[in-house]
Amino acid sequence: MATIKDVSKLAGVSVATVSRYLNKNGYVSKEAAEAIAGVIDKLNYRPNTIARSLAGKKTATIGLLVPDILNPFFPELARAAEDAANEYGYTVMLGNTDNDTAKEQRYLDTLIHKQADGVIISSYTIQPDHLRGLQKAGIPVVLLDNVFSSDSVVSFTVENKEGGELAVRHLLERGCRKIAHICGPLSITSSRERTAGYEAVSTGTDWFTPGLIAYSDFTVKGGHSAMQQLLVSHPDLDGVFASNDLMAAGALKALQEAGRRVPEDVKVIGFDGIQLEMMSPGLSTVAQPIYELGKTAVDVLIGLITEHPDIPEDKVFPVSLTVRQSTGG
Amino acid sequence: MATIKDVSKLAGVSVATVSRYLNKNGYVSKEAAEAIAGVIDKLNYRPNTIARSLAGKKTATIGLLVPDILNPFFPELARAAEDAANEYGYTVMLGNTDNDTAKEQRYLDTLIHKQADGVIISSYTIQPDHLRGLQKAGIPVVLLDNVFSSDSVVSFTVENKEGGELAVRHLLERGCRKIAHICGPLSITSSRERTAGYEAVSTGTDWFTPGLIAYSDFTVKGGHSAMQQLLVSHPDLDGVFASNDLMAAGALKALQEAGRRVPEDVKVIGFDGIQLEMMSPGLSTVAQPIYELGKTAVDVLIGLITEHPDIPEDKVFPVSLTVRQSTGG
Repeated sequence: MATIKDVSKLAGVSVATVSRYLNKNGYVSKEAAEAIAGVIDKLNYRPNTIARSLAGKKTATIGLLVPDILNPFFPELARAAEDAANEYGYTVMLGNTDNDTAKEQRYLDTLIHKQADGVIISSYTIQPDHLRGLQKAGIPVVLLDNVFSSDSVVSFTVENKEGGELAVRHLLERGCRKIAHICGPLSITSSRERTAGYEAVSTGTDWFTPGLIAYSDFTVKGGHSAMQQLLVSHPDLDGVFASNDLMAAGALKALQEAGRRVPEDVKVIGFDGIQLEMMSPGLSTVAQPIYELGKTAVDVLIGLITEHPDIPEDKVFPVSLTVRQSTGG
Repeated sequence: MATIKDVSKLAGVSVATVSRYLNKNGYVSKEAAEAIAGVIDKLNYRPNTIARSLAGKKTATIGLLVPDILNPFFPELARAAEDAANEYGYTVMLGNTDNDTAKEQRYLDTLIHKQADGVIISSYTIQPDHLRGLQKAGIPVVLLDNVFSSDSVVSFTVENKEGGELAVRHLLERGCRKIAHICGPLSITSSRERTAGYEAVSTGTDWFTPGLIAYSDFTVKGGHSAMQQLLVSHPDLDGVFASNDLMAAGALKALQEAGRRVPEDVKVIGFDGIQLEMMSPGLSTVAQPIYELGKTAVDVLIGLITEHPDIPEDKVFPVSLTVRQSTGG
């Protein structure tokens, strides 16, 4: 009997794309849809992935590990993963690892012991050998936010460096002439890349000095105090790029407390694209495709669970600019 | 051999208190500590709850179901439950039921199938017969936010009505003379009780009319549009009590957009006590003891898992006023 993998190969598209096509669930290009439909006809493939995946398992479960449940990015990611998983008849069990390797390992042990069907891991700290237990137990993995140079696991990330460049160029276009940067933890790859994006555009300009970079920790409080420091050392700054939205929100608050008008005196942009509807002024940001990330991770993972195809290629998702009042609306 | 239940009975304190004492983990009054120490001596009780609970179970797991992962209240609750569970060597698997009874039931089935050791359920919608499967499987349950008039399950709630009264009285003390109310979904008991608190203080005053109550949905967007409506129907209002912090944040934003100064022209207070550090002005609120709720739920659940005592009494936790800039600081 033909499998989803056969369809994928003959149609020249990924298993995830076939899965999206079959479930009418997510974006499939017109050409891909036509190719898939042709192959399905030719192979007389019966798309009963869901029924088959459920037949052997009474309670199909996916584990999703996130590094910080208090950052709204991760509840939003979880919500997206859940929506996708529910369409396949799977439930998502969420674990908050708190950036703690020991806690992460305990969750992985639990997921192995409780026989999760697959695991999505968003982690800043995970290393290839931490996945051995899962691999031994035959439990497929999709990694988010972290890339191993390895063929044995699929990783999804976003264009972090390009996003940093996008943020700084946007501030320059809006008339900023001295742009500070609040950077996140240097232990986190995506954080380093966003800062590299800032540096790529700033270095060599007449206004740049390394003192315009303030180091912080991805929290509102951290962004608030980093902004206070920057206002003392560089009172003439007129733009701020923070490496995540929570720090940007803290920076906004510090600017308001210091009597600086946003966006008139200082323009602010964050990174992530989380829902911060309560912010006034609204926060401009470099948005990650959070919903698509969560959904694609599930699509690919279900493909790995139900069809055991080859490990798909890693994928880097594009980011996009969301312009709100904090950079002039 | 003496059990934790024996210690609890003889010392005249709850199993949770003994558990907190044994684990040096959370508040135990001096008198309770002395009583427990005396009984432990007398019974020669060996406090090896943790070792025993772990001996039979390689991966001790608690399920925690929450109704809305996008409301920061629930990630904060999860974080507290996790801290407590980790001290006992347990991991917490989180499920977001999205206020959807079918999804809730699927999670409960999964937790039964995966043999969770116990489940904490925060739910607006759950009914006693939804718990039958867990009870049949011998899996203990602690309910949050919902009380069954039943001895077979323990429930924790907070003083919702008293909290509503507290909020309105605080606004009156701060000089408000026409206080509007943004109420949450009427299907939710705690939401109805908060509104009952508002009514108890407001009804019979010379300024009250039922039109001062705007119905909304516990979201930022919902609070925002409810506030816009209220400003049209009651442009002379000078105080707002919203039944949760997210709606209060939306109301603040609508007031700022309408050019009303907070707190000078209009004072605003919410309910929940979630971390909204990015708000400017800072939001006054009726704070639930979120951390204590999560922690106590785990303490009691672990007691039920490891010692099978009688179902403890339901408990109503007190709320407290947190005064910030939005009501005058």
